[in-house]
Amino acid sequence: MAEAARAQQDPQARPIIVDFRTEPARYRHWKLATKGEIATLTMDVDEKGGLLGGYELKLNSYDLGVDIELADAIERLRFEHPEVKVVILKSGKDRVFCAGANIRMLASATHAHKVNFCKFTNETRNGIEDASAHSDQKYLCVVNGTAAGGGYALALACDHIMLVDDGSASVSLPELPLLAVLPGTGGLTRVTDKRKVRRDRADVFCTTEEGVKGKRAVDWRLVDEVIPRSKLDETVAERAQIIASSAKNKGDPKMGIALPPVERKRSADSNEYRYVSVEFTRENRLATITLRGPDNAPPSSTGELVAQGPAFWPLQLARELDDAILDIRLNELEVATIVFKSLGDPQRVLAYDSFLDANASHWLAREIRLKWKRVLKRVDMTSRSLVTLIEPGSCFAGTLAELIFAADRSYMLIGQVQGDNRAPAAIILGETNFSGDLAMSNGLSRLATRFLGEPESQEAAKAAAGKPLDAEEADEIGLVTAALDDIDWEDEVRLLLEERASFSPDGLTGMEANLRFAGPETMETKIFARLTAWQNWIFQRPNAVGPEGALTRYGSGQKPNFDLKRV
Amino acid sequence: MAEAARAQQDPQARPIIVDFRTEPARYRHWKLATKGEIATLTMDVDEKGGLLGGYELKLNSYDLGVDIELADAIERLRFEHPEVKVVILKSGKDRVFCAGANIRMLASATHAHKVNFCKFTNETRNGIEDASAHSDQKYLCVVNGTAAGGGYALALACDHIMLVDDGSASVSLPELPLLAVLPGTGGLTRVTDKRKVRRDRADVFCTTEEGVKGKRAVDWRLVDEVIPRSKLDETVAERAQIIASSAKNKGDPKMGIALPPVERKRSADSNEYRYVSVEFTRENRLATITLRGPDNAPPSSTGELVAQGPAFWPLQLARELDDAILDIRLNELEVATIVFKSLGDPQRVLAYDSFLDANASHWLAREIRLKWKRVLKRVDMTSRSLVTLIEPGSCFAGTLAELIFAADRSYMLIGQVQGDNRAPAAIILGETNFSGDLAMSNGLSRLATRFLGEPESQEAAKAAAGKPLDAEEADEIGLVTAALDDIDWEDEVRLLLEERASFSPDGLTGMEANLRFAGPETMETKIFARLTAWQNWIFQRPNAVGPEGALTRYGSGQKPNFDLKRV
Repeated sequence: MAEAARAQQDPQARPIIVDFRTEPARYRHWKLATKGEIATLTMDVDEKGGLLGGYELKLNSYDLGVDIELADAIERLRFEHPEVKVVILKSGKDRVFCAGANIRMLASATHAHKVNFCKFTNETRNGIEDASAHSDQKYLCVVNGTAAGGGYALALACDHIMLVDDGSASVSLPELPLLAVLPGTGGLTRVTDKRKVRRDRADVFCTTEEGVKGKRAVDWRLVDEVIPRSKLDETVAERAQIIASSAKNKGDPKMGIALPPVERKRSADSNEYRYVSVEFTRENRLATITLRGPDNAPPSSTGELVAQGPAFWPLQLARELDDAILDIRLNELEVATIVFKSLGDPQRVLAYDSFLDANASHWLAREIRLKWKRVLKRVDMTSRSLVTLIEPGSCFAGTLAELIFAADRSYMLIGQVQGDNRAPAAIILGETNFSGDLAMSNGLSRLATRFLGEPESQEAAKAAAGKPLDAEEADEIGLVTAALDDIDWEDEVRLLLEERASFSPDGLTGMEANLRFAGPETMETKIFARLTAWQNWIFQRPNAVGPEGALTRYGSGQKPNFDLKRV
Repeated sequence: MAEAARAQQDPQARPIIVDFRTEPARYRHWKLATKGEIATLTMDVDEKGGLLGGYELKLNSYDLGVDIELADAIERLRFEHPEVKVVILKSGKDRVFCAGANIRMLASATHAHKVNFCKFTNETRNGIEDASAHSDQKYLCVVNGTAAGGGYALALACDHIMLVDDGSASVSLPELPLLAVLPGTGGLTRVTDKRKVRRDRADVFCTTEEGVKGKRAVDWRLVDEVIPRSKLDETVAERAQIIASSAKNKGDPKMGIALPPVERKRSADSNEYRYVSVEFTRENRLATITLRGPDNAPPSSTGELVAQGPAFWPLQLARELDDAILDIRLNELEVATIVFKSLGDPQRVLAYDSFLDANASHWLAREIRLKWKRVLKRVDMTSRSLVTLIEPGSCFAGTLAELIFAADRSYMLIGQVQGDNRAPAAIILGETNFSGDLAMSNGLSRLATRFLGEPESQEAAKAAAGKPLDAEEADEIGLVTAALDDIDWEDEVRLLLEERASFSPDGLTGMEANLRFAGPETMETKIFARLTAWQNWIFQRPNAVGPEGALTRYGSGQKPNFDLKRV
């Protein structure tokens, strides 16, 4: 996973560039096998395969590298194996399901790594629930022994949890008593809001190191059933069959499309993909992501769509953008602002959207939309300032227009630029900007969120769908932050980017995490807001991470020394 | 405000005991005047009147002491002046509305003080919205000049914001650019979720030190109207008249009841009130709050209720409990756990609830219920472990039973205790436990929140309303965490309290903030979760509070020095 060593300024930061691209043949920690409608995803972590070094991944504990493989497997199951209706998630170790995030890794990682690691694992677990909700791939979790902390949090993301009833197998969230941190990868929120465990029982559960086993685990709704070890395999097979036979999308084909590695050419100051370019202007703490529109018209049939497969423009672009964002998050910590630009024919972009709309019932068209939904959520959740610049030659239409509304600010250039004969920029809205197919984690479309206080603007935007909107029209409707003419453009953009780079990175993180998510909260947003923000606070508190804190002292034989004041 | 000096362990902590009790005659920073249906609340902060010392409260900036008076005024308006339908909130300074929380105070205060200060100011602002929503006392905010940071956040809590249009008066949230912290007293959340400002405009607003003025402030929905200075008084008077004439509760009397100071006798290890005793067992980091039931049956008429006024048992108890909780929050930082006990006749407690139910349309009965709702929310929001012990002689019925469901755990003793001939403990549920009149900040009753995953328990509890439930019955329905007999009781309670005191205070704070609030999120919970948790994180980050951080260096002439990595 470590692609190259590169020195970073922070002495604590490890000289590791994280690569999110992998494939089953390269997995070190997971095995993926499919047989008809049933897949088996086996966690068998290689102790020696730690991503950062300096710790052993004992007892199926995990780090970011392990989770990158899991995320890959979940994605592949949707595209490569649409025939799969049930995924059996199990352990390859004897009497151990998963010990959760590796504690020594957590204790030695930088604050930024901890935060980004938790964010990615949260997104991966949300991905399991997304596959269950929208692709009818149900996750059956087989807990054959200890499922502790993040191990149980992983089980919680599944649809059905089966626990071996052998007097010792248990589920637990021992983070608080053991490490003075929270069960932060969705654990607390899924206990209260998904499993709806009574709060005093949740309190007992989360303060009991050894966790809960057997009948009590069922009574408290921590697991769905307990099964004698002797009947485990048989019962799992039965449950899988029952779930598979009740699948809704039975019409999905037997064969999916293969996902080749996302090709990327990295240089000192850029990442080049087929449809995405990332350019780093390090002195300005800037990453400019340019998305290129399609070269050709969309296919004329779903047969052709399948034939294009991973090369189908919207799919390839989504995968490249996802990789680009993840790369910046983990490997480019000093980037203050991501600028989105685009190049291409907006009408052609819209034609691809229309093709996907027209074939919405086709499995692959559905999966591609869902992929875009996840990638755009990843953008929303990225703690960098996001700015979208809409210039002549750009193609912010339909799905790509979402990047205007995902941005903290979007500026649009009025008319043409001297010496450039390209037509003035135009935004074109499409059905997909209103349908909710690309909803944010708060459950609303980005436009609905944007216009919470002005439903009339939402109506005006709808009425303008399909029509190329120039800068002044877009500004009038409220689609952009500002429309600027050629004379002001360069200065205004420069000032914005300089200002952004001058602010406290932490202040911006907190501000953006609040301003981006107006309106309703969902279980997903609760995980990223209430739970994550408290965990990040605790990840700064001496009682957890100080020299005498619980995370630091874990395993040293020394007890932590707490500042006893509540705040 | 500083009652006495007492040395605390932390050298940073100032030897100040904060007293939350005050009254208009003692205000140093506010003036409260009423005339018929219209009250005027004037902020005129005494620069020399800082609570902690070491700073001057210039430009109507505030600290906890200023906010204690505001909270008192808001409470008094409801009880003492039910005839008031409009509260004009204005500044006593020329061309300055309010500069927000005092920056030097924030920079010098301990982390715990900052957090508790923000929590109290948030509760106070929620109190304004509660008065508007439920007591039909509308707040009209007159911004005659600069309303910056917490000053604008205060305006945001009001129903109607009027801004002087003189080319300089402005509203602003300059926390991020100026101090690298968030507009944390509801600012960000009310901008997005109450005023529903478009997110990119909110981004511009929150990064523009000088704020927004004039027409743009109206266009962006930051204020409701702008008014030329020459027409200000006249327009304010007109608006106040219009709002007053559209009041719903026109039937409220011309005279309220006077609220005398809550009487409290403080000793080294206790606080004694008429109906509340607080006992500190410092070696166990424990505060035991015992609530005493009423001595007599409820009054037989609303006339008698008004005659009893502040001595009416539910009102006096609520005020005493509120003071006890606030005292622990600010003055007893090392208390890990609050134990609630009660003493009295549960049937008599229920009789008071029935009296309030029967007279729900009477203004004072309504106010007393609403007061209990606020006090119980304050309990929910208190970052100490909460344990309720239900023993023989206790009176956890109706409103008081809410303390069982507000607790992180509740233990109930089965049968009698040897040598004590009091009848076994009984819980009695009443209408008020189900009606939502005492709803938590998530909008649900505590029982509905508790039983989110088991509606059948909610039904069983309803069916058992009015019936004294012994420990085993209460346990069966799910009202208590555990029913324990005489033999186990002492050991189990001791173990629980010892365990609680052994955990990291921060870990508990984060865990309880997650487990207590299952289910929906509201604007109120968003303020206390998403916004507050991020702010607390930032209050720990060197970029804000480190030696070179923005909060520390503010006003020094030196620019802050930021760690530029995003996390």
